[in-house]
Amino acid sequence: MKPDVQEITLHTSGRLSRLLVGQSHDQLDRYLPEGKTVMITDDHLWDLYPALFKGKPTIRMGTGEKVKTLQTVEKIYRELIDLEADRSTFLVGVGGGIVCDVTGFVASTYMRGVSFGFVSTTLLSQVDASVGGKNGVNLGGYKNMVGVFNQPAFVICDCDMLSTLPTAERLSGLAEVVKHGLIGDAGLFAFLEENVAEARSLARTAALRMVSDSITLKSAVVTRDEREAGERRILNFGHTLGHALEKVCGISHGEAVSAGMMFAVHLSVARNLIPRTAADRIEALLADLGLPLRIDARPEELLDALRRDKKREEDRLFFVLLNRIGKAVVVPLMMDEVARELGIYYT
Amino acid sequence: MKPDVQEITLHTSGRLSRLLVGQSHDQLDRYLPEGKTVMITDDHLWDLYPALFKGKPTIRMGTGEKVKTLQTVEKIYRELIDLEADRSTFLVGVGGGIVCDVTGFVASTYMRGVSFGFVSTTLLSQVDASVGGKNGVNLGGYKNMVGVFNQPAFVICDCDMLSTLPTAERLSGLAEVVKHGLIGDAGLFAFLEENVAEARSLARTAALRMVSDSITLKSAVVTRDEREAGERRILNFGHTLGHALEKVCGISHGEAVSAGMMFAVHLSVARNLIPRTAADRIEALLADLGLPLRIDARPEELLDALRRDKKREEDRLFFVLLNRIGKAVVVPLMMDEVARELGIYYT
Repeated sequence: MKPDVQEITLHTSGRLSRLLVGQSHDQLDRYLPEGKTVMITDDHLWDLYPALFKGKPTIRMGTGEKVKTLQTVEKIYRELIDLEADRSTFLVGVGGGIVCDVTGFVASTYMRGVSFGFVSTTLLSQVDASVGGKNGVNLGGYKNMVGVFNQPAFVICDCDMLSTLPTAERLSGLAEVVKHGLIGDAGLFAFLEENVAEARSLARTAALRMVSDSITLKSAVVTRDEREAGERRILNFGHTLGHALEKVCGISHGEAVSAGMMFAVHLSVARNLIPRTAADRIEALLADLGLPLRIDARPEELLDALRRDKKREEDRLFFVLLNRIGKAVVVPLMMDEVARELGIYYT
Repeated sequence: MKPDVQEITLHTSGRLSRLLVGQSHDQLDRYLPEGKTVMITDDHLWDLYPALFKGKPTIRMGTGEKVKTLQTVEKIYRELIDLEADRSTFLVGVGGGIVCDVTGFVASTYMRGVSFGFVSTTLLSQVDASVGGKNGVNLGGYKNMVGVFNQPAFVICDCDMLSTLPTAERLSGLAEVVKHGLIGDAGLFAFLEENVAEARSLARTAALRMVSDSITLKSAVVTRDEREAGERRILNFGHTLGHALEKVCGISHGEAVSAGMMFAVHLSVARNLIPRTAADRIEALLADLGLPLRIDARPEELLDALRRDKKREEDRLFFVLLNRIGKAVVVPLMMDEVARELGIYYT
């Protein structure tokens, strides 16, 4: 085992989840229980890592957000039936957020729930999806409309698998890392400022730090509020407008979150929660990492998408703003306030 | 409120569920939280109880086991999106086991879970499905292959709605009541023997006793073992072969469970766990209630269905036998033993 592998343990709803940062995917067998294992992955990873699937029944799904559907879930259920998977079968999702979201939902609902683990292969899934137990699929053009909360038994975060990531995937992960620094870890934010080239290229040491700090922060938040009743909402920093931008403009998650964070930063400055100098630092870091600061869109279209946000409750939408770099605050905004702010920002 | 209404409280996974035995469906509003409610029911109940749905958005599904599918679930998700249901929306399933199973699964997975309650309208759903938090749908010809464990906030068990039940529905409920007596409540079994006509006709007093005793027994078992790791298995008494019979012979659930119980009684006598006189009492009660004692089928076909049972673990199938009337014991049988016993019983 590499000397710098770290294990972080997460407790939610009485269950335990092992997060193995820097562990190699070829150590998977160490974490599997006795009995039958079925692997679930996408065509891309199947081609890249044949040794990982050798000798194990494997269900393959396509790639991209378009396969994150109930139809894919049903197809996997049927393959599990054909493989005679039973309640003692263990499922392993190997992939990024999409494979892990689908696998987690399938495992949580097949025969009313079987145990599962992940080999998390993208920066985004390592820093974000691996913790928190959110899973699910899209429906009717809306993201994650169907799913449950359920944490895997383990997540192997193999930083060496990140070297093959496409740019959009890399940027999506980096946007979440910046988010974690902003909402709860000023030390991580400073690390990114000081090591921006290593962070941007996902050099092993920087990747380990980003993944480990992100998981530590997110674990702490999620443990205190598993079902997003309160504090967990801070993890949506940049995501409220981000999801709307992603939907309306068809851009990548990372670009959308980056621009969404800058809108939240703008609101935070406008409300005198943070000084202009803090906003400048955030802007500089995002730009240095190659992330966009602003995505133009028509306010009415964004507003329409926000109305369909599953976090909307009646006429209120909870926006996450900053108190300072490293500290977030949740502010409920009425939909007409949101409309006004969007109108101002997008003139 | 009627003077004989009873409230039984169930605690599972830190949540509380109120079981309202004998309460009238027209008291539903007393149990609803503030905010939006969406009703889910079938065409039959929509026609029978128009007042119950008046002024509330209602999603209707078809009737029968054939609609207990992922397609129905997806259709309901889409209607919920159209109704702008959000995370604070409360869902009420009005119907028997099928409506409640589908509603429970939809509520547990829509936006990763919203709160829900039931108006339980059949004897089977009142004595069985209302407690235990099992929900889900069928897939590929197998029952309840997809679902989760999640208990509703409340279940209104309106015994006066039972008067319109078709015979097959009535018998299915009665079979479960007999099962509850056999596995854990000798007093209930004796009550049924002594009040067989009232039980058979679902007279209010007998119905209240059957529902209340069944819920009390099942609650106790489920509270001790929510996820069916051990003791809860006794609730499968008669169901292992029963499900196979249901699948192979296309008979009703009640008929299948009754015949399945008699097979389990046969095994219990063969192993000297209970005397022949106990078997005779059980046989007499089932016959007096109008339930079948034996359904003929080809052993090979039954065995094939049992192999697909989701309770099978590798080569073992857990059979529930009786130690005496009122006490069950779980016995793991190897598949070849099961084959031998079926061969003996069906010669």
